[in-house]
Amino acid sequence: MGEKSILDYETVDLDDNDNSVVIIDQTRLPGKTEIIRLHTAQEIWDAIYLLKVRGAPAIGVAAAFGIYVLAKGIVKESGGEMEFEDFYEKFHTQKEYLDSARPTAVNLSWALNRMDRRCQMAGREERKSIQEVLETLHKEAVEMKAEDIRVCHAIGENGLRLVKPGDGILTHCNAGQLATCKYGTATAPIYLGQERGYGFKVYADETRPLLQGARLTAYELFSAGVDVTLICDNMSAMVMKNGWVNAVFVGCDRVAANGDVANKIGTSVVATVAKHYGIPFYVCAPTSTIDLHTPTGKEIRIEQRPAQEVTQMWYKERMAPEGVKVFNPAFDVTDHELVTAIVTEHGIARAPYEQSLVDLCHAHSQPG
Amino acid sequence: MGEKSILDYETVDLDDNDNSVVIIDQTRLPGKTEIIRLHTAQEIWDAIYLLKVRGAPAIGVAAAFGIYVLAKGIVKESGGEMEFEDFYEKFHTQKEYLDSARPTAVNLSWALNRMDRRCQMAGREERKSIQEVLETLHKEAVEMKAEDIRVCHAIGENGLRLVKPGDGILTHCNAGQLATCKYGTATAPIYLGQERGYGFKVYADETRPLLQGARLTAYELFSAGVDVTLICDNMSAMVMKNGWVNAVFVGCDRVAANGDVANKIGTSVVATVAKHYGIPFYVCAPTSTIDLHTPTGKEIRIEQRPAQEVTQMWYKERMAPEGVKVFNPAFDVTDHELVTAIVTEHGIARAPYEQSLVDLCHAHSQPG
Repeated sequence: MGEKSILDYETVDLDDNDNSVVIIDQTRLPGKTEIIRLHTAQEIWDAIYLLKVRGAPAIGVAAAFGIYVLAKGIVKESGGEMEFEDFYEKFHTQKEYLDSARPTAVNLSWALNRMDRRCQMAGREERKSIQEVLETLHKEAVEMKAEDIRVCHAIGENGLRLVKPGDGILTHCNAGQLATCKYGTATAPIYLGQERGYGFKVYADETRPLLQGARLTAYELFSAGVDVTLICDNMSAMVMKNGWVNAVFVGCDRVAANGDVANKIGTSVVATVAKHYGIPFYVCAPTSTIDLHTPTGKEIRIEQRPAQEVTQMWYKERMAPEGVKVFNPAFDVTDHELVTAIVTEHGIARAPYEQSLVDLCHAHSQPG
Repeated sequence: MGEKSILDYETVDLDDNDNSVVIIDQTRLPGKTEIIRLHTAQEIWDAIYLLKVRGAPAIGVAAAFGIYVLAKGIVKESGGEMEFEDFYEKFHTQKEYLDSARPTAVNLSWALNRMDRRCQMAGREERKSIQEVLETLHKEAVEMKAEDIRVCHAIGENGLRLVKPGDGILTHCNAGQLATCKYGTATAPIYLGQERGYGFKVYADETRPLLQGARLTAYELFSAGVDVTLICDNMSAMVMKNGWVNAVFVGCDRVAANGDVANKIGTSVVATVAKHYGIPFYVCAPTSTIDLHTPTGKEIRIEQRPAQEVTQMWYKERMAPEGVKVFNPAFDVTDHELVTAIVTEHGIARAPYEQSLVDLCHAHSQPG
């Protein structure tokens, strides 16, 4: 009955029989919905680096599935049995390799470190057999996906309390279902509101250079029947000045201990303009993106990407003269003073963030 | 010796023998330098509407040449002689038609009204023959081009006093030579500084959706040997936060009596972010763009353009889902509170603009 919507696909999945990570190739959207299978370390690394899978939470889950797939490969290659330390040496090398794909989102290393810790515990403390270690890793990765869905749903509930029916909401980049396993982070309040007939009017920044807002956010919200209007990034001031925006929701790749937020390039522009017009600016962040070990945004390494993304990637022909210098940072840091609140699955943090983020993280930290 | 640079071409010219307006088709830059000739009212209107010629000053000169070309056509069609009032009726119709091509830039109607007034004066007050009227119109249009060059040069001198050697300068859209007859407005201080070895570091916003910054500004500055770095519009906050920008220079399409400025969409974003980082925001404006009859920015009509410019115009394939709503204003209004100064050919206006703009315009208004 009707065509399959983009929201009917899994953003990230595991095919345990095929021993592959299964993703939608997001670089082909919205023109083509292509499901691809990643088997090798190179394929997984490339998929993350090339943004075939992207969005901090989705990258985390893809990396968890990925390192499990590679772990199985290590065992298989050895003939099915091996010493844990021999296994772990190779596992750790693969984990470090995957971790190098993108530097800014904390979820990538967060997910890989969690798998790493679980692996060490299973092999060294619990002294499991190598097959049992694999089972443990499988269970952990599957749980991380389930957690992501629960976390996004909870962020949606918490975010929904900050807006009211009929509100205008602006979002930047894609912190949508395509950036997570379900609901998204910044879009979670929108989807929950949609289910409850809130009638939000959403403005999606197209988000240059990779156009995640146009290609992904506008696409997934439109598919879900949300009233969404696509704008260029430089139009945010005009829609805010026109009084069309009651709140901004964005996702994030890393929150520093002081509340500075690394997110897709342009986020700090939106935050600055929102502040100018007195519009609340909300960051939707699973606590897994809160990095208490990073004191401020200054310490967050910002990934620089190739000039071609700006000058020619999508285009029929080059859009800038050959040889011209290009500055192409993938992220920027929004100063905590511009952030009205950080919406997590455990509640809403407000300034002073040094205290509120610690409280949120520690109150809900799990043992182990 | 060497290839012809884009700066060696005339942005707008008149070929009196061919009876055509000669322009660089700016929609083909930077890939292709195509010189086109506009003979008919439709061709001239289309060239302005489709941004083959763009930039407030260049549009003004193109319209002046255009209405002259059409005036010659009217006379030629009548066999070379006709009553002035018969001629004027047709002239006025053509003038109104050209004036409808774009609503926001005041220069279009300013230039056409100036040609109209000169025409009426020549025919009614000076009682010139129809051939003499044509000569008068020719002289007026040619003078307007020469004036544009003098005006831009003077803006450059005035703007140059606001910066110092080695400064970082950010600009948005193209208020360059390609937007005028020479020097540009926002780029005039840059070009004059370049001649004098100032060593500016320029950041050019690419300026979505039509990419005038990437295609035109980066191109012409790069051709001139200026140290220019192309950025996406949403990167302005990051380069400002990094301390790389000492001043912003932009052009404008219309300045209201209170100092509100209509300019390319995104200008008000740049102004807001510049204010946040304490960076001066300068608007370079020939006094012909100052419209004392428009009290504030609220009264400036903002041109809305087709969704396709955002979703598919430059692209290999559609960049947004079919059917999604798009908001595509061509301009925005920057509140006068965000404007540090308005740089004109006659000097620099600062707040309160109600007074300073009147002073500048009246001190230098020409009789007639």
